[in-house]
Amino acid sequence: MEISKAIPVGVKDVKINGAFWAEKQEDVRNKIIPYQWNALNDNVTGATPSHAIENFRIAAGLSEGEFHGFVFQDSDVAKWLEAAAYSLMNHPDPELEAKADSVIGIIEKAQQEDGYLDTAFILKDRELRWTNLIDCHELYCAGHMMEAAAAFYTATGKDKLLRVMERVAGCIDSVFGPGEGKKKGYPGHEEVELALVKMYRATGNHKYLDMAKYFIDERGKQPHYFDVEADRRMSGNTAADYSYWKDWAYEYNQSHKPVREQDAAIGHAVRAMYLYTGMADVALETNDEVLARACEKLFDNVAFRQMYITGGIGSSAHGESFTFDYDLPNDTCYTETCASIGLVFFANRMLRIRRHHKYGDIIEQALYNGVLSGVSLDGQKFFYVNPLEVWPESANKRNDKRHVRIERQKWFGCACCPPNLARMVASLGEYVYTTDDSGVQVHLYVGSEADIRDKGIGLSVHTEYPWDGAVRITVKEARERSFGLSLRIPGWCGDYEISVNGNKADFSLKDGYACIMRDWSEGDEVTLLMDMPVKRMRANPELRYNAGKVALMRGPVVYCLEEADNGGILTSLRLPADAALKVTDGSGLFAGTKLIEADGMRSAPWQGGLYSADSAGTEQKTKLTAVPYFMWNNRGPGEMLVWIRE
Amino acid sequence: MEISKAIPVGVKDVKINGAFWAEKQEDVRNKIIPYQWNALNDNVTGATPSHAIENFRIAAGLSEGEFHGFVFQDSDVAKWLEAAAYSLMNHPDPELEAKADSVIGIIEKAQQEDGYLDTAFILKDRELRWTNLIDCHELYCAGHMMEAAAAFYTATGKDKLLRVMERVAGCIDSVFGPGEGKKKGYPGHEEVELALVKMYRATGNHKYLDMAKYFIDERGKQPHYFDVEADRRMSGNTAADYSYWKDWAYEYNQSHKPVREQDAAIGHAVRAMYLYTGMADVALETNDEVLARACEKLFDNVAFRQMYITGGIGSSAHGESFTFDYDLPNDTCYTETCASIGLVFFANRMLRIRRHHKYGDIIEQALYNGVLSGVSLDGQKFFYVNPLEVWPESANKRNDKRHVRIERQKWFGCACCPPNLARMVASLGEYVYTTDDSGVQVHLYVGSEADIRDKGIGLSVHTEYPWDGAVRITVKEARERSFGLSLRIPGWCGDYEISVNGNKADFSLKDGYACIMRDWSEGDEVTLLMDMPVKRMRANPELRYNAGKVALMRGPVVYCLEEADNGGILTSLRLPADAALKVTDGSGLFAGTKLIEADGMRSAPWQGGLYSADSAGTEQKTKLTAVPYFMWNNRGPGEMLVWIRE
Repeated sequence: MEISKAIPVGVKDVKINGAFWAEKQEDVRNKIIPYQWNALNDNVTGATPSHAIENFRIAAGLSEGEFHGFVFQDSDVAKWLEAAAYSLMNHPDPELEAKADSVIGIIEKAQQEDGYLDTAFILKDRELRWTNLIDCHELYCAGHMMEAAAAFYTATGKDKLLRVMERVAGCIDSVFGPGEGKKKGYPGHEEVELALVKMYRATGNHKYLDMAKYFIDERGKQPHYFDVEADRRMSGNTAADYSYWKDWAYEYNQSHKPVREQDAAIGHAVRAMYLYTGMADVALETNDEVLARACEKLFDNVAFRQMYITGGIGSSAHGESFTFDYDLPNDTCYTETCASIGLVFFANRMLRIRRHHKYGDIIEQALYNGVLSGVSLDGQKFFYVNPLEVWPESANKRNDKRHVRIERQKWFGCACCPPNLARMVASLGEYVYTTDDSGVQVHLYVGSEADIRDKGIGLSVHTEYPWDGAVRITVKEARERSFGLSLRIPGWCGDYEISVNGNKADFSLKDGYACIMRDWSEGDEVTLLMDMPVKRMRANPELRYNAGKVALMRGPVVYCLEEADNGGILTSLRLPADAALKVTDGSGLFAGTKLIEADGMRSAPWQGGLYSADSAGTEQKTKLTAVPYFMWNNRGPGEMLVWIRE
Repeated sequence: MEISKAIPVGVKDVKINGAFWAEKQEDVRNKIIPYQWNALNDNVTGATPSHAIENFRIAAGLSEGEFHGFVFQDSDVAKWLEAAAYSLMNHPDPELEAKADSVIGIIEKAQQEDGYLDTAFILKDRELRWTNLIDCHELYCAGHMMEAAAAFYTATGKDKLLRVMERVAGCIDSVFGPGEGKKKGYPGHEEVELALVKMYRATGNHKYLDMAKYFIDERGKQPHYFDVEADRRMSGNTAADYSYWKDWAYEYNQSHKPVREQDAAIGHAVRAMYLYTGMADVALETNDEVLARACEKLFDNVAFRQMYITGGIGSSAHGESFTFDYDLPNDTCYTETCASIGLVFFANRMLRIRRHHKYGDIIEQALYNGVLSGVSLDGQKFFYVNPLEVWPESANKRNDKRHVRIERQKWFGCACCPPNLARMVASLGEYVYTTDDSGVQVHLYVGSEADIRDKGIGLSVHTEYPWDGAVRITVKEARERSFGLSLRIPGWCGDYEISVNGNKADFSLKDGYACIMRDWSEGDEVTLLMDMPVKRMRANPELRYNAGKVALMRGPVVYCLEEADNGGILTSLRLPADAALKVTDGSGLFAGTKLIEADGMRSAPWQGGLYSADSAGTEQKTKLTAVPYFMWNNRGPGEMLVWIRE
């Protein structure tokens, strides 16, 4: 697989000003980051104390006490710092920066002489460092803090955290690696791989890339490292003996075989996404075509065999995991917000390797559905699990749906999703444009100003996307006059027009990218008009749970029925194959968005009894109203349904 | 609720000779009872040793060793003895009787001085007797042995086991009851209540009926006995503190409130059925109309709100339990064979209280579907869980379906279902006829000879039911000449004819029973011709999981699609509303039965991908073949589906 090396235009150089995403970013800035700051500092009344910053303070000798929280508690601080860094890139805020600086100061003080930095092991179990990689999260926490360090350095030019994390990397390198006497280990929860590549990119130090590559290549080799460490802890034991997951201990964290031999996503979905992202990063940076091909196989398996139409992944609550091809139940799935975010990371890296619309399609399918459904419209409550069908009484009472919450929550004991969402939204700019030798690529349609410094190109994008398929791109600057401007034509788009300065444009189409090659002048205006009809999506018959049903999509947005609009027992509703689908303007909570209305049918209610041969399936006419899936549950609890009987 | 007291015609007086049930009984006699004898004696190679008889031998001082097995291991011996007793009633077998006698001898020797008899507590935890009623099964085991004792006494006239169990009852009575200093307890797993009524009926000793009534009335009172005993074990603790089920510890075993106040089935389904059966028994014997009304409410809740069309109950694996009204998923349900058997017990008792076809309907709906599906056609393998939709790969790989076995098993660690099935089938005769002042009632249509001694009435029934709706009843003896012969007209039957000696009969119809009142003579022949078309059953729209689907029934038999006949991906099949349903004669494995054929549609397979707007849901014509649900999975593993898209 040939590797093209597209370079993302960074967050700093992409000012998002289009209403849709600017508002989301504002929520992150004004609500989520401050709220999470309070949560991390144990200042949210009613919430379980996080203790995350206090752990660092104790490790730094600034406070007294014991470690509290999960073994990965440190990562919450890292994700907050990373989100704050992205936010600072385009919105300087001395108060926020001061908070970040203060935390970084504490972190620096908490770091041990040898570079070690993990408060769970500094404050307790000091002698157990690096002995239980399968379950403990030392490398995972280090990875998140490396991501934060790189982002904070980019945002502010301050390198204190970056230097701290270089020392952590040095500590890790002294323990793990190919050298004699070093442990041949790798993380139980992947993350450090992609983070080390970010460290490499931030510092230029090739050692970090080598470390990332080592962790990826070592994974799944025999003798299995997780068995080796289990045997060290108690002679004769294997990882399976120790593990809650038993024999599945290896699949759960994708170490069941070497990564280049893996061709189907398996195990914990977030772990899988972080691993695959790191693999793609290493493939790109090391020109490793074999690894890139493995990545593409895994991507295709996820996108075309194991993904919900919302971009949700992880069809089982057990291990928050993938199960197998086409096993995608709508009401018992896990579809964690973090997993969809991880899928965006993975697709984004693939897009740098190969310009193909499928990667951009999946990025926006996940973003506009399974990612954004994770946060309430007021930016203050969060879903961890994002099912496609919710019957509240059943979710509340059935044990096999106990992971399903019928309303978004303020915070979670395991608080991975809210800060992950914050950093995703805050860093969105980075996902919009790339450049390469051929020119500039536009992957997502986001109202923004892009400043492509190395080429001296400035673009301004105006659009009401995803509610409208019209995109206007103005060339504000074109120091490099001759370049190709490539626009992603989404897979959902069957009909589109491209014009330059009002005239039909000449372009070449390859793998879903329309490339307009010409000499550009300042003020040139490109218009992309994408026809955006409502589509009745059907599922592959192999996907048994959706037989006879349709889902409504318009552009990248998946729609759903809610009890608030359609009454209860949503399964009793039917959308006949010949029903016209009318796009309407939303109002109130939905102002500025598009809803879908249709004439549907409702099964007539019964007077008691469970089964009858006498009912001929009597139906009554009814009006159906579908709302964007990501906006569901902003009007109190109630039923919700994506896949509708036809 | 007025209580009519119908008296069942006992197993001894009903010789089953019709092919369908005679063959099932033969399997019990020739295969299941001998197999289980070997299992109980640890003589089945490859199976986990039961140790159940060995436990009694050790307790009796005939062997050395320790207790092994579940705390309710004794009950397996009891159920085997009970099944053997029913079998002996019509099929004397000196060898089998000798085996039973030998076990009874061991049991007698194992009994303690004070009458106590539970090997788990005799062999270990002797001082913990009667201290943990919520979890331990002392009263449950005693109940099963009482049932065995009553049956064995009826079968053979030998009262050794009955005397043993009278001493056990005396021991229980010395510990529990209203008297001062006695514990105010009741079982965590109900069973002893219905068993004590059997003891009362076998001995005429009213004390046993009083004990049953006490256990029933005491249940759910405050202060809660399970809290009292928890507090005794560790001061300040409640049952919820001790219990795996936490706050659900009371609902789980139906002790959350007094039984007369309960109106919806809840908790462990088998426990619930045994309790309700005991309640109905006590209501009948004590003329307790309030209790009878509570029973009817509970019955109606089960039958019309919480029962699968197969007569399966228990929609959740968690606690093998009921959940709530209309929550009946087809692929994750528990629907334990034992629970359907318990439902037959309960409906049978209700039928003695009130002659209404709904009770007989549910008996046969459970028997011909959810009960018989528990055993393979060769009588040698068993299902514990009886789902209505099976996708083998998903059942094997999804954790929330881990309770679903895709093939019947030889035996189980917790071996409750196989012996329960054996005693159910062996005692079927008892469910067919009752008598009361008005005459004789025929509830089930089973080829048999009935000898109603007290009235001097003999009936002979010929029928191919459930494959054919024609029933011929010959009066062989009619010493009491004038009596009403009542025939249940099943709820499924819309069209029927009754004739006497070839002439249209005069009859009155009440609550689904057609009563022919006349002076009968020997040789009179009554013919009931029930039209038995295939019915497309639909589910109440509240039952969300079955929206847009139909199930096929013919008479009491539910049909299903199997992969063996219809290929894979059964959800891709559709039975159009106008498709003719053709009844055909089965062959091979299905010889003597009826199958259903129809012209259906199959979704065209896709080339890859999960979702598409382009597929217009293309379908191809295909032939559908449905087989009786209870006969599924006799041709190797494969998909199965009861509810078919219409």
